[in-house]
Formats: sequence, structure tokens, C-alpha cells
Amino acid sequence: MAFSEIEYAVTDRIATVTLKRPDRLNAFTLTMRAELIEAFDLADADDDVRAVVVTGAGRAFCAGADLGGGGGTFTRRDRGDHQEELVDGYPRDGGGTVALRIAQSLKPVIGAINGAAVGVGVTMTLPMDVRLAADTAKFGFVFARRGIVPEAASGWFLPRIVGIAQAMEWAATGRVFPASEALEARLVSRLYPADELLPAAYALAREIAGNTSAVSVAAVRRLMWSGLSASSPWEAHAADSRLMAELGSSADAVEGVTSFLEKRPAEFPMKVSQDLPDGVPSWPDDPYRV
Amino acid sequence: MAFSEIEYAVTDRIATVTLKRPDRLNAFTLTMRAELIEAFDLADADDDVRAVVVTGAGRAFCAGADLGGGGGTFTRRDRGDHQEELVDGYPRDGGGTVALRIAQSLKPVIGAINGAAVGVGVTMTLPMDVRLAADTAKFGFVFARRGIVPEAASGWFLPRIVGIAQAMEWAATGRVFPASEALEARLVSRLYPADELLPAAYALAREIAGNTSAVSVAAVRRLMWSGLSASSPWEAHAADSRLMAELGSSADAVEGVTSFLEKRPAEFPMKVSQDLPDGVPSWPDDPYRV
Amino acid sequence: MAFSEIEYAVTDRIATVTLKRPDRLNAFTLTMRAELIEAFDLADADDDVRAVVVTGAGRAFCAGADLGGGGGTFTRRDRGDHQEELVDGYPRDGGGTVALRIAQSLKPVIGAINGAAVGVGVTMTLPMDVRLAADTAKFGFVFARRGIVPEAASGWFLPRIVGIAQAMEWAATGRVFPASEALEARLVSRLYPADELLPAAYALAREIAGNTSAVSVAAVRRLMWSGLSASSPWEAHAADSRLMAELGSSADAVEGVTSFLEKRPAEFPMKVSQDLPDGVPSWPDDPYRV
Repeated sequence: MAFSEIEYAVTDRIATVTLKRPDRLNAFTLTMRAELIEAFDLADADDDVRAVVVTGAGRAFCAGADLGGGGGTFTRRDRGDHQEELVDGYPRDGGGTVALRIAQSLKPVIGAINGAAVGVGVTMTLPMDVRLAADTAKFGFVFARRGIVPEAASGWFLPRIVGIAQAMEWAATGRVFPASEALEARLVSRLYPADELLPAAYALAREIAGNTSAVSVAAVRRLMWSGLSASSPWEAHAADSRLMAELGSSADAVEGVTSFLEKRPAEFPMKVSQDLPDGVPSWPDDPYRV
Repeated sequence: MAFSEIEYAVTDRIATVTLKRPDRLNAFTLTMRAELIEAFDLADADDDVRAVVVTGAGRAFCAGADLGGGGGTFTRRDRGDHQEELVDGYPRDGGGTVALRIAQSLKPVIGAINGAAVGVGVTMTLPMDVRLAADTAKFGFVFARRGIVPEAASGWFLPRIVGIAQAMEWAATGRVFPASEALEARLVSRLYPADELLPAAYALAREIAGNTSAVSVAAVRRLMWSGLSASSPWEAHAADSRLMAELGSSADAVEGVTSFLEKRPAEFPMKVSQDLPDGVPSWPDDPYRV
Repeated sequence: MAFSEIEYAVTDRIATVTLKRPDRLNAFTLTMRAELIEAFDLADADDDVRAVVVTGAGRAFCAGADLGGGGGTFTRRDRGDHQEELVDGYPRDGGGTVALRIAQSLKPVIGAINGAAVGVGVTMTLPMDVRLAADTAKFGFVFARRGIVPEAASGWFLPRIVGIAQAMEWAATGRVFPASEALEARLVSRLYPADELLPAAYALAREIAGNTSAVSVAAVRRLMWSGLSASSPWEAHAADSRLMAELGSSADAVEGVTSFLEKRPAEFPMKVSQDLPDGVPSWPDDPYRV
């Protein structure tokens, strides 16, 4: 793939997306934004990809927006290649375009946070399913120290992940905090020595790929995340009644039960690209995507 | 009661519902579904019941859907005694009918998870108020390993109970995990040696029954759960303003304050069956109940 | 200020609100209700206030509603100075008027819970951003023991802060519990020896005041809390796109980035009273405020 600021590679049914501007601590740019969105498009379209791991090259994960533009950085930030996309007359927040693309991923997404994740470097990880981190990683929702606010829809994601008290403490102080504080608040699920982080992320990805139906996992991802948006369990019940009716008689369900009864590994025949049932729930429509 | 796959007994103002197919690890069937719904109807109607404890007979809590039907299990699962109930043209998900009945309970519900709780065996516990478990219990949201998805409205319940990251990790891997992992993620509130589990559940039930107004507790249950569905604290404020106006001048409120000032146990006169104020908030209507 | 049941003082850019009826364990009255609302109005209007610390005089934080009126306490509770405010024909719940005012604060609010916080004494703290407590503090959602229910919109706040299982266990038992139980459930963020509590609260307030844009922090507060009410991340994305467009080119953003690049402390020029962007998200309108 002709990416310039990320790397995208598929091995062993796992796509790895690597933020790759190590000399700039993988600082976020409009180019990186566009390439990340494209990488998730590729992963969704490729039936050989069962999970996506996102990490950073070098010692940082992502140091936030590239401030090379100086004081006008956030003035100019949306004057880029997606300027035509407006929300209520305003240019779409750049970090949000990435976060919402990740939120819509049909493949589970594992963040492998190898070093500093600051500003958009941490908010872009919030719609990932699981965040694992190096025990040397640092985090910071530093926006209020720069005169702006947490973006990338983190007002929706962050208090649902770590609770409103922790979200407010981090966002109001703009504090940079160590991995141990991130773990205690469950911003990350587990910490590892730096050299064991990617192996742990791949082990989790293989646990998914090796045991489950790809179609089930795509449906699960939508079910759980859109369930967090659903207004009541009755709304969720309507969604799962339809989905269980559709999937319950599918080839994957027959194989899943039969292989279990026969005490052998399952060989699920269905493909995400072709066999996703109509009843897979959606997030509310993304009205801004052009 | 003429139940065949559960047992229902009321002692000391506590109803115990026991899943009772121990030779099948209490695997879930359409009969068990209907009996569970009926048991909660009985508990709600009986003013002598102040709390409900749900547990399993033998070494399992509930091993999930009975797969005795083989590969077609989930095809046939809704062709049962509630086939006439449709959601948008689809048969209602069976686990969901139980989960939503438990969600509507007017009595607090304590899960006493004595052993394996897998598939619908764990999703049915999500609308319970508190889950206690034996330290030897195991859990699994194994659906994606069978080619289906977590049901019983667990897309709504699970990420609200354990957070979206933990929900996705369990649901995407389909992993069977030990009680210690359930405790760490707060899927269960506390663990006990197996022989101390039921005593602990009853102690909690008695703490409720011995100290509080039954009408207050019924109202609390609706207030908290529907509050989790409310769109904003202003909506909750409207609900509690009405409820406080109605309950504040009730006989139970007079007794509650008077007994406190007189430093004696309260003797609350009101009954759930007769005295529930109109202002007790509701879940959104259940449009599918026939 | 001519307050009789609270004290309000501003020092070092931090407002301290002290509940001050120590002979009554700071029990809540209609006068205290009105004074608390006025104190938050003062703090919001004063650009010299960067954070608000709320604590209690003497050994308690707040022992709940003053029960000096005897059995009719909750009958009479809303026949006070705000009787003209109705919700759907019912007098507004008094604790809720305070809680919703705190929820709307433009300054971050830190609870410094120095002793017993019971009934409305604890529910009024739920819309605060961070709760710190003395390790000798006690807590109780005792409403069901008095024949009423948790108020102050705690059906919305409590399960979002501590989870529905913990919320139901506390609210259904009415149990009084120690600070350690509050910490374990993350009702409070950290515990301190009693004499270190206020210094810790002020240190946190100074961390906010000394490092961040006041306008950013006001916007952050609305973004995070209203984000918890938002129906989906797309709704949040629309809000932050507008806010980033407005703040990104502001004087505070220019100073925030420039000072960072120059490795010097920022001197943010903007004021909350004058410079709050129109795009700061709102809670759903409060239709009951007269």
C-alpha cells in the first residue's frame, strides 16, 4: 500500500496499522488522518483480516497534533483535504473522522500503546475495543493546556470508558499521567513490559481469530457499541431478536454447534464481505461522510 | 407450584428460584424460559416476598442453551410456546424474554452463581441487581464460538455493567473465564467459597428485607434502572419530583422518619401490591408482551 | 456574602463552599438549598474563580435532610421558598434543584467529604466532578429506610458513577458504609487522613487553575457531562466540530500552543464571563428554572 505516514500489513489474519513518523513522535497530520481512514476501509473489506492491531513506530505511540504550524495549528487544522465535509456548517473535527471510522470497524481493534499517547494520540484510541499498553507509556488529555478541548467525540467515549469523575479530572487538569494511573482507571486493560506488548496484542487477536465466527464477531462489535447508544434494553431486544433469527439458522451457527458437540475446532464458512445479515445493528447514521 | 425445570420457594420473606436440570447442567430450554417468567410474576404479586435469589441446582448455574437439538438448536429455539410474540416480524429472542422480565421485577434480584454460567446462563443474570458467585464459578459469553451473538439484550446490559472494553474482549473471544476475572471486572460483586455463597445471598436479602420499606425498594429498583435509560438528569428530576411528592407524605415515610427519631425498628405499613405510587417510573413500554 | 447556613469564600482563585450548621451535622434545609444555588451562581459569574471546593464545617459533611420536622418532614419539604417551581404539576425535588445547579456549573467542582455524607448529603455530591474524602467519612443512601427514594436525580447520576449493581445494593439496603467501600466502588476517587483532605482538594484545584485555559475548562465540563447524555458519538462529533472551529482560532489556543513551543507557562487571556464560544454544548434545557 502506498501509505506515507502509516504502515499497513496483514500477517497471520491480523492487520497491523503502525503510526510511522517516528522522528516526530508519530504526531498526527491530515495525511495521517486520511491514511488511517483508508487502512480501516482496507481491513473491513479483506476477509483475511480477523482483527486490527494499532501501534506506533519508535518510542511514542502518538504525541498528538503536529504543532509544527505554531500558534495557528488549530486554526488551520481543518483546512485540509476533507474541507468539503461540514457538520452544521463547521468543518469536521479531524480526530473525530478517524475515531468514528474506527467506531464503525467490522473487525475488532486492539490498541497496542507502546509509548506516549497524548492529545489526539489518546483520543483516537477510545473507539478501539481493547487498549493494551507498555508499562512505560504515558497519557495526557492535554487539550485544556493548549486552549482547546478534547475532541474525536471523546465527550461521548471517555466518560463511558473510565467514568465521569476520572474523565473530568484528566480533562480539566490536562495532566500527563503514567501507565499505572491509566490501568487503575481502566483506560487500558493490561500493562506489559515494552517488548511483550505486541506479542500480547497478537495473542489476543489470535484468540479471536482462532476460535470464533468472523461474521459473529462483526455483529458482536456492532451489537455492543450500538447497545451502548441504545435507549433501552427493549430496543436492544428488538435488534437481537432479528439478528438471532437470521444468524441462528446460518451455516456458521450450524457449524458452531456441531463442532462443539463433536469436540473439534470449528471451520466457519461465512465471510464478512458477503454474509453479514441485514439485521446487524448500526450506529446511528453518520450523516457527514461524503 | 407445578414447575418442572425450576424450583420456586419462599422462606423468611425471600423467594429462591433454583434452575433445576442438574443432569443437564441446568441448560436453558423453552420450558425453563416460561417457568422463569412465571416465577417472577409470582414474586412480584406476593407481598411476603421482599427479594429474589436465583441459583442453580448441582454443580452448574446454567450451562447455556440446551444443545441437545444439535446443529439446528438455534434455528428451532424460537419455535416454542411463545411463537406468537414477534418483534418487527421476528420471533422474540428467548433469553431476552427472561432478561426483560427480570429487568421489570419489583423485588430486588440477587444472582447466586454457584458454578458455570455460560451463554444464556450468564446473559440472563445481567438484569439482576447484584451478582455474587462461588470462587469456583466459570463464565463465558461463548456465542461467537457457536456462530451467533450475545442475546438477552446483553448489548445494552453488558457494556453498562463491565464497560465496553471488557464487554468486547469477552464477547469477541468467546473465552471461558474464571471467577477471579469476573470479580476484577465487577461482573460479580463478591466471591465466596461455594458453601458460603447462598448464606451470603440470603444475608444481603435480609439486609434489604429487615430495614427498608418494600414500596421504597420497588420504586428504587425502577428509579435506578430506568435512570440508566433516562436521557438526562432533568428527565430523572421530573420523575423524582413526582415520586417524592407522592411518597413523601405516605404512611411509610411518616413511619420511616418517626421510627428513626424514636431509635426503634420501623414497621412499614404499605404493600407493593396495593400502594405503589403512580409516579414510580417505568422502563419504556414493553410493546412485545402479549 | 450574607449567607446563614453556608460559607462562601474565594482565595487563591478557588471558591470554597462550606456547609455550616455544625450543631445539626450540616443537615440540609430549604435555606441551605437556596444558598447553595446562589453560591454556584456567584462562582460562575466570577472570573477569579477557577474551581469550587465543597466541604462541611465540623465533623460531618451533611447528615441529610433536617428531620427536626418529625414524621411530616418529607411532606413539608417542598412547601418552601421555591414552591412556585413545578415539574408536571409537582413541586421540584429540593435536592434536585441543587444537584442540577451543580451539574450546570462552568467551574469544576471538587467535593471534599470530611465526614458523614448521608441522604441528600451524598446525593448532592454526585454532580460534582471529583469526590475526595476523609478516610473516616461515612456514606449512606438511606432513603428506603425512611420510606422514600434517592432523589436529586441520583437515578441518573449514581448508576453512571458506580455502576448499576453497586447503586442498587446501596439504594436497596439503605446501608451506611465506610469510606473504604466508597473508594472500592469509585464513589470517591481518593481517601486522605482528615487533616490532609482539604490540602489535597486545593492541590487538585490549583493543578487546574495553574495550567489550563478557564474557557477550555468550562467547555470541557459541558462537553464531558453532556457527552454522557448524548445519544451517540456522532452527536458528540457535531458538537466538537463546532467547538474546535470556534476555539481553535481563539486567543487561548494561540497562547496555548505558542507557550508550549516556547517552553514557558501559558498566560491565557480569555474570560469565561465574556469569551465562552456559542458552541459550548448544553445539557438539555432545564425547563423548570424560573
